[in-house]
Amino acid sequence: MTSKRLPFDQAEYDRRLLMTRMAMALAGLDALFVSDPANMQWLTGYDAWTFNHHQGAIILQDADPIWWGRQQDTQGAMHTVWMPEGCVIGYESDLVSSMERHPIEDLARHISGLGVQNLGIEMDSQHFSAKGFSVLLQVLPDVGFADATGMMNLQRAIKSAPEIEFMRIAAAISDKVMEGVMKHADVGMAKNQLVALAYRDAMQGVDDAWGDYPAMPPMLPSGSDPAAGLLTWSGSPLVAGEDMTFAFSGCYRRYHAPLCRTIFLGEVSDEKRRAEAALIESLDAGISAATAGSKVSDVVKALAGPLGHGDDIGNGFGGLIGVAYPPSMEDDVISLNADSEAVLEPNMTFHVCPTLSVSGANVGIGQSIRISEDGAAEVFGGVSPIFATK
Amino acid sequence: MTSKRLPFDQAEYDRRLLMTRMAMALAGLDALFVSDPANMQWLTGYDAWTFNHHQGAIILQDADPIWWGRQQDTQGAMHTVWMPEGCVIGYESDLVSSMERHPIEDLARHISGLGVQNLGIEMDSQHFSAKGFSVLLQVLPDVGFADATGMMNLQRAIKSAPEIEFMRIAAAISDKVMEGVMKHADVGMAKNQLVALAYRDAMQGVDDAWGDYPAMPPMLPSGSDPAAGLLTWSGSPLVAGEDMTFAFSGCYRRYHAPLCRTIFLGEVSDEKRRAEAALIESLDAGISAATAGSKVSDVVKALAGPLGHGDDIGNGFGGLIGVAYPPSMEDDVISLNADSEAVLEPNMTFHVCPTLSVSGANVGIGQSIRISEDGAAEVFGGVSPIFATK
Repeated sequence: MTSKRLPFDQAEYDRRLLMTRMAMALAGLDALFVSDPANMQWLTGYDAWTFNHHQGAIILQDADPIWWGRQQDTQGAMHTVWMPEGCVIGYESDLVSSMERHPIEDLARHISGLGVQNLGIEMDSQHFSAKGFSVLLQVLPDVGFADATGMMNLQRAIKSAPEIEFMRIAAAISDKVMEGVMKHADVGMAKNQLVALAYRDAMQGVDDAWGDYPAMPPMLPSGSDPAAGLLTWSGSPLVAGEDMTFAFSGCYRRYHAPLCRTIFLGEVSDEKRRAEAALIESLDAGISAATAGSKVSDVVKALAGPLGHGDDIGNGFGGLIGVAYPPSMEDDVISLNADSEAVLEPNMTFHVCPTLSVSGANVGIGQSIRISEDGAAEVFGGVSPIFATK
Repeated sequence: MTSKRLPFDQAEYDRRLLMTRMAMALAGLDALFVSDPANMQWLTGYDAWTFNHHQGAIILQDADPIWWGRQQDTQGAMHTVWMPEGCVIGYESDLVSSMERHPIEDLARHISGLGVQNLGIEMDSQHFSAKGFSVLLQVLPDVGFADATGMMNLQRAIKSAPEIEFMRIAAAISDKVMEGVMKHADVGMAKNQLVALAYRDAMQGVDDAWGDYPAMPPMLPSGSDPAAGLLTWSGSPLVAGEDMTFAFSGCYRRYHAPLCRTIFLGEVSDEKRRAEAALIESLDAGISAATAGSKVSDVVKALAGPLGHGDDIGNGFGGLIGVAYPPSMEDDVISLNADSEAVLEPNMTFHVCPTLSVSGANVGIGQSIRISEDGAAEVFGGVSPIFATK
């Protein structure tokens, strides 16, 4: 018997499987192939850096889920999934880089043996390729296929009590990293040196809680760079007058709680102070409006109010958070967009991050929150919203 | 005019484009859509953490490449690509999370406007979804499609002189990280604390060279874990008798040079010493055999010889390295497998990593190398092959 290292008890996994099966039944699916590694981890416990290969979990209505992946990863699967060893199936290593055969042929054989009629596939997941789908279509001409992108991500939206505990720990790690950044960032410091400190603090974790790799590296645009906010760092130094916006998430057992603050570098103009005040007011308003039963669009309206955007509110105020693997931190089944009709439910968790453009540079503030049973949302972590000035 | 931050001069990008166009012509393609972020960076210079969204480069025979991605990422594109601003095309943000429309509809419109007849697609790339392909097929019924997976990865296999310089810097970062690990790893130390040191050292970089995020986090299996080598770390401490194998790559401007060593913890049995000697002999034999003109299968035979595997050599001796983005460190168009007929050419670069199982635990040694114009391969970096003992 392999020693297991599961983060949750069996009741939690049973609950998740039940929810997934209900969603499958509603969609008329007797089987679902889950390739998104966050969905796979949430449902089975599987946690390993193997998602650059064809792999996934086959979810059935009347039998345990099946882990399917490379033969050499089956040991890792047995360490991390809750299902018995018989539910772990590996495909031979010579399929991995074969020019003649494809790993999905092996998957198709298993699915065929299970007598599946209607199979859900995460068609728009990064982790299920166009080639893989064409192989499935060819080998399984009698199976019906349905696009199940986002089906499991929606099941994951509402967090259980133990999941929320993990997110509070992730938030404590985010706080520690941000406090270090606020302390050490300074004019003349090279950005990669700040990233080095952030990673060190994040991996060390807090108290007994060890840090895990985040689904995204830190983002720390400054000056004219913020307009290109998803460029990663370089060795160039922080410059007086070119404020830096630092966004990062601590990670605990794959759960995230992102945090974002601008750090003013050098003299702070009145215009910048007004932007800071507006962003803090925006975040407060958004948190107050984020009550169970509210529509996402109303939360976005509350966030946008203090920012003076007028009618053109725009998108990009944040999104759903929880389990994540690179490259995606947020789950885009529910995003904080002006036209979203999604309704907030207790224990949904979001990263809320209003931003403003000041003289061509972006400033921003971001906080992770939990929708409460009643009243305003719970804010994860406790870093001051006031921007540090260096 | 946007300030550019390109790592190479225009002649280097011109050479890459020419090679790509020749490969396209051989395959009868008048256009190629490149979605693999490593291929996209190599060809256009684009470098940003946006590869969780639909994006890519359209390569044509008779016009500059076109960067295509989200509207909000176009600023980042203009900062990083060598093409003029007119070659950067963004799709509107409300396509990103739309339920009714798909970003690839926008791509299809542009491709249609270009009069493309035969379009190559990276069908088995993580970064081109099954859904995206089905949209292309639907919107462009008159275009011919061909699977171009690996076409550009093969063009990238042989490195130029400036690329090799970058890999030497990446190797210096790998060395620094490994020396820190060899110094600080000890019985009782929690694995995440070791990871914290490794990330700090890697991001700090060496001399004037700043560290970038690696395509894979460190892997540090120990004890019975090595059988599950791609499980990431936890907070559990290193244990006497449970040797740790640490694998990591420094990264400089997206170029990698992985390094792997076992660290003996506690008493070292004769069996373990014999394994260490066999691995060092294997690595030496592999490096000597890795001459220009040799077949990969012969290098693998040389690597396997001292390991006593008999006829069942197996795979997993390493692979092609260079530009990489998460989640893949190695480029599997050429892997060090026993049945590979690929022929080594000067300036191909590989991670060579023989491993052995000793009493159920894996030990390994890995080094990044460059195939020389004549004679044995150049070894990147200079960390001793002798295993540290703690």
